[in-house]
Amino acid sequence: MNILINNGSILIFNKEKAFIQNKNIAIENGIIKYIGKVPDDFHYDKCIDATDKLIMPGLINTHTHLPMSLLRNYADDLPLWEWLTEKVWPCESKLTEEMIYWGSLLSIAELIMSGITCFNDMYNFADIVARATQDAKMRGCICETLFDKTRDDSSDFKETRDLFKKWHKSNHDRIRIFVGAHAPYTCSPDYLEKMVPLAKELDTGIHIHLSESLKEVEDSFNTYEKSPVKHLYDLGLFDVRTLAAHCVHLSDEDLQIFKENHVNVLYNPVSNLKLANGFAPIVKMLKKGINISLATDSSCSNNNLNMFEEIKLTSLLNKGITGDSTAVSAETALKIATLNGAKALGIDDKVGSIEVGKCADMILIDLNKPHLCPRHNLISLLVYSVQSSDVDTVIVDGNILMENRQLTTIDLNTVMKNIQSCAESLTK
Amino acid sequence: MNILINNGSILIFNKEKAFIQNKNIAIENGIIKYIGKVPDDFHYDKCIDATDKLIMPGLINTHTHLPMSLLRNYADDLPLWEWLTEKVWPCESKLTEEMIYWGSLLSIAELIMSGITCFNDMYNFADIVARATQDAKMRGCICETLFDKTRDDSSDFKETRDLFKKWHKSNHDRIRIFVGAHAPYTCSPDYLEKMVPLAKELDTGIHIHLSESLKEVEDSFNTYEKSPVKHLYDLGLFDVRTLAAHCVHLSDEDLQIFKENHVNVLYNPVSNLKLANGFAPIVKMLKKGINISLATDSSCSNNNLNMFEEIKLTSLLNKGITGDSTAVSAETALKIATLNGAKALGIDDKVGSIEVGKCADMILIDLNKPHLCPRHNLISLLVYSVQSSDVDTVIVDGNILMENRQLTTIDLNTVMKNIQSCAESLTK
Repeated sequence: MNILINNGSILIFNKEKAFIQNKNIAIENGIIKYIGKVPDDFHYDKCIDATDKLIMPGLINTHTHLPMSLLRNYADDLPLWEWLTEKVWPCESKLTEEMIYWGSLLSIAELIMSGITCFNDMYNFADIVARATQDAKMRGCICETLFDKTRDDSSDFKETRDLFKKWHKSNHDRIRIFVGAHAPYTCSPDYLEKMVPLAKELDTGIHIHLSESLKEVEDSFNTYEKSPVKHLYDLGLFDVRTLAAHCVHLSDEDLQIFKENHVNVLYNPVSNLKLANGFAPIVKMLKKGINISLATDSSCSNNNLNMFEEIKLTSLLNKGITGDSTAVSAETALKIATLNGAKALGIDDKVGSIEVGKCADMILIDLNKPHLCPRHNLISLLVYSVQSSDVDTVIVDGNILMENRQLTTIDLNTVMKNIQSCAESLTK
Repeated sequence: MNILINNGSILIFNKEKAFIQNKNIAIENGIIKYIGKVPDDFHYDKCIDATDKLIMPGLINTHTHLPMSLLRNYADDLPLWEWLTEKVWPCESKLTEEMIYWGSLLSIAELIMSGITCFNDMYNFADIVARATQDAKMRGCICETLFDKTRDDSSDFKETRDLFKKWHKSNHDRIRIFVGAHAPYTCSPDYLEKMVPLAKELDTGIHIHLSESLKEVEDSFNTYEKSPVKHLYDLGLFDVRTLAAHCVHLSDEDLQIFKENHVNVLYNPVSNLKLANGFAPIVKMLKKGINISLATDSSCSNNNLNMFEEIKLTSLLNKGITGDSTAVSAETALKIATLNGAKALGIDDKVGSIEVGKCADMILIDLNKPHLCPRHNLISLLVYSVQSSDVDTVIVDGNILMENRQLTTIDLNTVMKNIQSCAESLTK
């Protein structure tokens, strides 16, 4: 389908700056063909009038566990260990493929309605997560969570290989598969070491939780006499593309390892606060040139998948921590939520910004709201004032997944009805 | 008008806990007459079906500067002093009564659409702010900002007295007037001292900014050899009801003064981060039994008036700072945003909770959204998942100010058109 978008204000990134341009966009077979003057003979199937709309690249949520929305608001305000052992894990042991499917689809609906056009997921039953992604025509990177004692705890990694064969670069390359290592404290050194040649062979990356809590760091020093970051480095993990989620507790040596090995840090400000893990030092990391992308984590530790909340918090929190009101500017926060996510996932040649030749992954924000009035500075407005419900239209790979806030690929009523009954049988 | 609300899930506070009850509500002439069984002969003009809705007390925003929405997103990511002297103050000097009226009305529209049923405002042209409040049928506490060199810089406080005479307890007691002292660093000790007998004579309270930045505290020690809190205490300010906004930098002695003098702390988590002032120690204050209420500050330092953002941040931020995931529970955050606000303003006999005999100030949340699904725990859901756009219906003093997200007392298109032209003439 070819789409012409008229009269929009477009958020454009160049190397150093973000700015707004008033131009038209033409999309041909999912690719951005023109920005600005569109030839009179451009044939389009659909024309969108973007008057009073702001057009920006779709948000990229680089660390989540989609099916966990089934446990949203189930167990909050508890100490971490009680939360995991008495609440989350007993429920997770009861999960069925059907529950995973509906949980994934619910989360994908929420992602789309919040302006997210690409996610990076880690969970069990990854094949089912991929099926929901395919059904919704969403873009997503997916991995099966591996830790010692999973079915894939063997040298041949059959499950990950099968997943890769079936889904990697499928659906017009909207789905990609990573190797999913749960964490340094749930995977033995031997097991982690075996993942490196696997990732190299498959030419893909490794998605892992890293240095999330102080306890994890202390335990690592007690067991291995080094930080979790140094531990992974010594195992050779950073020889392949690494996507490291959380990274709250880091030494200067850890930062240097990240910098030299191009480790991508997936920043989860809401989750880090909610689970009382603290503040990831992203201002330091940004200054060092480490790639920081943004994420919501699961709806269990958030409790929604609202990237606009995370964007605002990214800017606010780091001003508060550093005592510097210029610490993370609005445009930096926007890059962290879009282009940096694409870089982390290795797909910045395709998505993450609105540029001719890239895939049409973009969202339209309805500016006709009292909290978005007046319009002094549209970049500030995107970070400090916009709410996820202001997203009007979502386009992924040239397909319109939402228009006037109506989803086109997901039957929301059916999903929500199924979720409630799944949730009840899960917790009873 | 009498209203019957059927089939709702109602958030109820008792002394120790918050819980959800499935009951009906009957409202007679603006007062909650029945919760639960409504007599068959109760006559109502309007029936609201609250199936799939959650009913909670309206949010109370206890510190804001409504007309400053005119400068929303005008000047962000700047050092504080440059922001004030080069951006905010030059614009404020150009404000006209017409601009103040439209700015106030825009903000009141945003408040209502975010589920706020009562505000506490401090600004210039307070008479105009009151007029907008009256026109919107909103509930608000209002004061004229006083500092040395204002027109009211005299011993007779003519402007505040006139304001009080004209508006205090007017409009069915929806409008109340406070004495508005800008801050200890903009009001001389003499001037502050004179406000105390004024507040006593008028039987009202004093609304003031206090201990917002580290610089303010350091300057106070340099000038008065004591903290701003001790300075105000020594001037007798705390002999009357005091509403102290921000209170970020406090010593243990300051906390003890607050406790002993029943000072009400107006907590502004977003603004304190955005202006890089830091983290108010509210967990300590709550443990001491100090009354903490919640606020957005102005749209200049936020940049919206979204109390649901502040509620979530109240819980998250204090978990993060203390390293304790149980530090501020969901129900505590909800009380801070409602009942504690009413206590601060001295109107908890009338509003702040849903109780028989209180005024009907309440909001209905539409639960039929993917990010509010499933429904494990509705109190968690209100704090961690709800977004301001989920507010469907707003009732203030028994008047429906919004239904199905349509405002009934404000013509939003006219307001937004006028705001844009006011804003342009303000900044050109």
